[in-house]
Amino acid sequence: MTIGLGSGSTVYWLLENLGKRVSKGLKVKGVPSSVKTEKLADKFGIPLTSFHDIQELDLAIDGADEVDDYLNLIKGGGGSLVREKIVIEASKHVIIIGDESKLVKGLGNRPLPIEVIRFGWEVTCRKITRVGAECSLRLEGSHPFISDNGNYILDCDFPTITHPASLHEQLTSLAGVVETGLFVNSADQVILGKENNIRFLERSK
Amino acid sequence: MTIGLGSGSTVYWLLENLGKRVSKGLKVKGVPSSVKTEKLADKFGIPLTSFHDIQELDLAIDGADEVDDYLNLIKGGGGSLVREKIVIEASKHVIIIGDESKLVKGLGNRPLPIEVIRFGWEVTCRKITRVGAECSLRLEGSHPFISDNGNYILDCDFPTITHPASLHEQLTSLAGVVETGLFVNSADQVILGKENNIRFLERSK
Repeated sequence: MTIGLGSGSTVYWLLENLGKRVSKGLKVKGVPSSVKTEKLADKFGIPLTSFHDIQELDLAIDGADEVDDYLNLIKGGGGSLVREKIVIEASKHVIIIGDESKLVKGLGNRPLPIEVIRFGWEVTCRKITRVGAECSLRLEGSHPFISDNGNYILDCDFPTITHPASLHEQLTSLAGVVETGLFVNSADQVILGKENNIRFLERSK
Repeated sequence: MTIGLGSGSTVYWLLENLGKRVSKGLKVKGVPSSVKTEKLADKFGIPLTSFHDIQELDLAIDGADEVDDYLNLIKGGGGSLVREKIVIEASKHVIIIGDESKLVKGLGNRPLPIEVIRFGWEVTCRKITRVGAECSLRLEGSHPFISDNGNYILDCDFPTITHPASLHEQLTSLAGVVETGLFVNSADQVILGKENNIRFLERSK
């Protein structure tokens, strides 16, 4: 089985446990969605492959920053949204894991991460502002955060996002925007941990 | 006056002549749309600025690979399509220059350049193929060509492009696609050199 390995703090626990199962004989190959996940998978002994060798994944498991009732997601808090989306779009089945705090009534409680080309990020920022957000350049210490793809991330504070699909389209049509953290029609299942049990959401077909 | 400086073989002549006028006292500042143009502008003595200091340009002048009767363009033969589009979108007025061979009845005689993230370019390529093109990774010698933004370029051979705006939207919505070489509603004027005179096209408002 080939598995797309997401990124972030929840996925850490997935990788640790997957590594344990691999050591007991589970046969899987993973495609990591970030440099950080690649290193963790190595550490936990999960065999890796790449899109050089396979074009489709059986399953992707990833976290999310926000999930709504329609299984739309905001991702990108960790800055790996582009690779995560490429991995997810290449997967036959997508499971999102997290704790119950990720479930929201409407997306947009926290700023939407948008990956942008470094060149002219100031004008790209202004174009996104015109779409209706307040944007700030993500920093790492006193320098701009750089994604695994060499780009910047703008954290864009929109009012509650009522039409994620059309907002995503509007944003990706702007020159300078590489990808947005809106994941629409991506997740097949969402599994949210509660204190003593789990909550299970499934996309209506 | 602030001028967006395009890229490519036609723009070379623009830069040379602009440099001459600057040396005679013309007051302009340019924003280059490629590393190559930046170096040429330096060579010809054209003062430069960046989007760090200005957010809007008075004018952009650039070349194109193809122009249709509606002033839609294909650009990106030189591999600078993303920066060129950022510069053009930031300009109040856009003039495209070239020779008459650039004028086509329908866009798509030559492959459409599409800039893509390196990670997973193989799956991005397959997604574009499903939209209807044959794609090949642009090479420089025996290695992939790398854009000024650190990405790959896919040259995508579509049948004649009858609906450039919707094709562009469809392509930019794919994860992994950074930008396409389709420039719709970008040019205000097109000036094409013929043997003994020029042909002048203007966008109907």
